[in-house]
Amino acid sequence: MSELWYTEKQTPNIGITCKITDVLHSEQSDFQKIDIIETNQFGTMLVLDGMVMTTDKDEFVYHEMISHVAMNTHPNPKKVLVVGGGDGGAIREIIKYPTVEKAVLAEIDGRVIELSKQYLPEIAAGLSDPRVDVRVIDGIKHVEENKGEYDIILVDSTEPIGPAEGLFAKTFYQSIYEALKDDGILVAQTESPFFNDDLITRVFKDIKSLFPITRLYLAHIPTYPSGVWSFTMGSKKYNPLEVPETQLKETSTKYYTPAIHKSVFALPKFVQDLLK
Amino acid sequence: MSELWYTEKQTPNIGITCKITDVLHSEQSDFQKIDIIETNQFGTMLVLDGMVMTTDKDEFVYHEMISHVAMNTHPNPKKVLVVGGGDGGAIREIIKYPTVEKAVLAEIDGRVIELSKQYLPEIAAGLSDPRVDVRVIDGIKHVEENKGEYDIILVDSTEPIGPAEGLFAKTFYQSIYEALKDDGILVAQTESPFFNDDLITRVFKDIKSLFPITRLYLAHIPTYPSGVWSFTMGSKKYNPLEVPETQLKETSTKYYTPAIHKSVFALPKFVQDLLK
Repeated sequence: MSELWYTEKQTPNIGITCKITDVLHSEQSDFQKIDIIETNQFGTMLVLDGMVMTTDKDEFVYHEMISHVAMNTHPNPKKVLVVGGGDGGAIREIIKYPTVEKAVLAEIDGRVIELSKQYLPEIAAGLSDPRVDVRVIDGIKHVEENKGEYDIILVDSTEPIGPAEGLFAKTFYQSIYEALKDDGILVAQTESPFFNDDLITRVFKDIKSLFPITRLYLAHIPTYPSGVWSFTMGSKKYNPLEVPETQLKETSTKYYTPAIHKSVFALPKFVQDLLK
Repeated sequence: MSELWYTEKQTPNIGITCKITDVLHSEQSDFQKIDIIETNQFGTMLVLDGMVMTTDKDEFVYHEMISHVAMNTHPNPKKVLVVGGGDGGAIREIIKYPTVEKAVLAEIDGRVIELSKQYLPEIAAGLSDPRVDVRVIDGIKHVEENKGEYDIILVDSTEPIGPAEGLFAKTFYQSIYEALKDDGILVAQTESPFFNDDLITRVFKDIKSLFPITRLYLAHIPTYPSGVWSFTMGSKKYNPLEVPETQLKETSTKYYTPAIHKSVFALPKFVQDLLK
């Protein structure tokens, strides 16, 4: 029998290739091509415009690391916004915190939400929580229309091409700054330090020009280009490295720990150099 | 014009694929298939038995991280052995330390050494240093024949199939224990925590049964399976987490820093669970 393999060119010169056991769904939504494929190595995979967004087996790294670092840096996060993140994984982590009264998901593509509920139920599990407000809207507009509203805003975007391009613009970070309360925190996914060095340098500079405390941290994510992923935090008041040990919570996680909270900010020399 | 791509199945279900601009050399040595290919993304690549061993662009991570953590944990490393590592990258890092009087390379396949000198001269640069003793020998035998000789032994092996299989055996770690001085340190490369969990669990247990201090640490290596790589340290006396700050040296590195020295031991929860 012939074998089906999914191959993603992560750059024009390199990619990953993954054996497919089943193609569960394929469609062109109003915004992007959506594929749901079944693989031996990573279980079910959500692919948007030919790029792996999340998989059953390694999603925990991304979703824990985009959310818990900020959630534990803020002493009392009540209102949290996720821009993008239609699979629901970041929301699932946020609502583990009993302080959270409201978590808003602003996802532009309703089909991503629906298909995640259907094919990735463990990732989308949190979307039905009564504190969660799922909105199929343009996150940029939502952020512009809400001032001083949020304790934490997470930018859980796709790559900076196609529908997510505006989610890497300085004007957007400015709107986020304004949508946050006076002690609010932004975390944005900011790609690979091996392949997207120019983007990291620019975004870090932009966020640093707005927020008094700006920090980059890293996590190991096998299905993302180069296997290393960066997150950039902009914080108005709280320093993630000065959180009292007693405030760091041991939640049910598979990657994040209180020790990881601090260690991920120790950057390899070549990554430090990108931020100068 | 047609495009040439190198595809490595890193497991039966996943791989990386890389655009080739030139095939510089291919041969079957007495021990393995050796290919040297030129790529846009990672420069020149050394491939052994179809597995990427090292590349111009990301070799610094592996070579710095297999060596500097031990070199800075030991207060006065004079005599160091590298088993495998015929490309010379680990040796290049070791001889950055002025305390080193002798660095022995025990590589079983002389062709790897010769081809690395020819095609990867920046990686092999240290092999001509007068303190370096390059021997084309079986590392297992060399370790068995030398008792109480070394301050540090690094196991810079290929994957645990083919010629390197014996380099993951408990009997080999026992011989290393005996070949080390009373305050000696072993570091072995121990594969990916995402794909080689059984191996990591077993090797950690074996090394822990021999050495009073056993620790695992991680680094981001894009061209290795899953992009995350583990190293296991067995130490007779010195604890890598208790090295005085003043002893940690800022050498010319692109990845390792004194802060990285400590942070890499903060393991994700799922990796901690592998070591229980």
